[in-house]
Amino acid sequence: MSKKRLSIVDIANNLNISKTTVSFILNGRAKEKRISTDMVEKVLKYVKEVGYKPNSLAKSLRTGKSNTIGLIVEDISNPFFGSIARLIEDKAYKNGYKIIYCSTYNDTQKTKDMINMFRDRHVDGYIIAPPQGVEEDIASLITESMPVVLFDRYLPTIDTDYVVVNNQFSAYNATQYLVGQGYKNIALITFANDQTQMVDRIKGYQMALKEHGLKQLIKELPFAEDLTESITAFLKSRKGIDAVLFGTNRDATYGIKIMHSLGIRIPEDIAVISFDDSDAFELHSPPITTVAQPIEDMAEHIITILLDKLNNNGVGTKNQSIVLHTDLVVRGSSQPAKK
Amino acid sequence: MSKKRLSIVDIANNLNISKTTVSFILNGRAKEKRISTDMVEKVLKYVKEVGYKPNSLAKSLRTGKSNTIGLIVEDISNPFFGSIARLIEDKAYKNGYKIIYCSTYNDTQKTKDMINMFRDRHVDGYIIAPPQGVEEDIASLITESMPVVLFDRYLPTIDTDYVVVNNQFSAYNATQYLVGQGYKNIALITFANDQTQMVDRIKGYQMALKEHGLKQLIKELPFAEDLTESITAFLKSRKGIDAVLFGTNRDATYGIKIMHSLGIRIPEDIAVISFDDSDAFELHSPPITTVAQPIEDMAEHIITILLDKLNNNGVGTKNQSIVLHTDLVVRGSSQPAKK
Repeated sequence: MSKKRLSIVDIANNLNISKTTVSFILNGRAKEKRISTDMVEKVLKYVKEVGYKPNSLAKSLRTGKSNTIGLIVEDISNPFFGSIARLIEDKAYKNGYKIIYCSTYNDTQKTKDMINMFRDRHVDGYIIAPPQGVEEDIASLITESMPVVLFDRYLPTIDTDYVVVNNQFSAYNATQYLVGQGYKNIALITFANDQTQMVDRIKGYQMALKEHGLKQLIKELPFAEDLTESITAFLKSRKGIDAVLFGTNRDATYGIKIMHSLGIRIPEDIAVISFDDSDAFELHSPPITTVAQPIEDMAEHIITILLDKLNNNGVGTKNQSIVLHTDLVVRGSSQPAKK
Repeated sequence: MSKKRLSIVDIANNLNISKTTVSFILNGRAKEKRISTDMVEKVLKYVKEVGYKPNSLAKSLRTGKSNTIGLIVEDISNPFFGSIARLIEDKAYKNGYKIIYCSTYNDTQKTKDMINMFRDRHVDGYIIAPPQGVEEDIASLITESMPVVLFDRYLPTIDTDYVVVNNQFSAYNATQYLVGQGYKNIALITFANDQTQMVDRIKGYQMALKEHGLKQLIKELPFAEDLTESITAFLKSRKGIDAVLFGTNRDATYGIKIMHSLGIRIPEDIAVISFDDSDAFELHSPPITTVAQPIEDMAEHIITILLDKLNNNGVGTKNQSIVLHTDLVVRGSSQPAKK
């Protein structure tokens, strides 16, 4: 294991002076404590010689600040969360903060564990895309006056800052677009649970179809390791589907691979729109129409809100709910072949 | 800011007993210190009532262990690093470790800063995909007997554990495959610097071409925000290229988008192979042939080596250099159109 770092006690022993004196000098309180200039010079010279570095962990115990932010995402390998994480980390670093992160895979218990571990490590604030079931844990952070910013989804019973997109309108708008292109049997294939973003996306899809008296065709997917079987079964059993809206990039990535393997042509047989833009969708032939989230803006709002709270000690800042707007990026996958 | 956590001092004051007594009881040393059972019960009862949680930060100062691993990647939003990070974090969590991470973007100064910050936070070990110029910093970690595992690339002058793939053979093999398919003007478009993985990929490409007496066509890219201009200029100026090997997934993602926009057909006009597999390459029409790195194996080796060192306090464990083999995943992008 690591050699023992030189501590204040070591310095005091080596110079044969008191630990308190060393501590006052290193913390810039020599003048206040009427310590002689000679003594200050002696200590600082020695410290420079031996290359002592103040222990920020000990400092964090004294000040209660760790300059660390806990980031809890669903899955760091998902391009949506990876891109947000990159931007948040970049902006945090420029403001002197480090990021401790974890992926939840929507596992409630893991998320609870991580919140506790982060709390024990004295993170200064939290950025969380919460699974269900962690309301109490987050409420308890807020009771302790810890800054918490939720993103991607929020918890309806918890009053805290959050940054999300207008999921309901975005799904409504994408579905409307498909109807406008002449599609009549529009399915929604989506990861489904009680998280706000997924509930809202389903609602938006339903609203658009209701408006036009069209039938709903919803395939709800579990948050499973492999979605191949359930999507394949759905696409095989439902004849006549002419368009699919995918609720997340993960659902669509599976869906498109399965369409290829089943010989379903996009858009000739089935038109496709997916939530979340990515290189995979842009590179696909034809390129996939997407509901693009404003990732840069989301990261900017998240970090700005959090830093504001950290810098003002949360005093006088009301919680903010930021709802950003998505872009429907229309590409070849949602346009009917010309007849 | 957060309300003050209840400390051992608070408990001692509230119960009107000494801080040392509380500390001995909470650290399970009551018997050893001959503290009465009554006193132990009194303290534990009180602690339960007020919901005191032991401060792991303070504990980490005592024990020197933080159960935190510092992970330093090039770019968390890159699918290669995102996937590795997910697997490492998952395996670390199952072994009771958390991950603090940062992206370097190959910025030497940022990497130095982060190593120092991680050291100040008492991380127990480091997993690093190092940029150049951090040799001294890593050597100094090793001098302090800190476990350090490098991955993706290594530092030739530093003796530490690392996990990489056989980059030279992989590039040689991919280029050989293109030659075997009948291509004669094979370009290498690649992020280029002195990092071992990039040097080896270039060498492998050169070896294959030399073997067949074919001309080298290398476009070295900087690690820039946007690669559009430099790749476009290269593809426009070099007539007669019939195949391209891309050195990284990032280079290929740009390259393929640019080929689309220039009307270059894959593989009819130019065949394509890229390092690093991803959904984007699998979904592309035609799907892109890739040199797939064994990400799961890499993560497994990295975390196993690190945990071994942590558990054995590094005693008796020699450094390991793990060189894993890639797979050439042959798809439609590298097969000449039938004539």
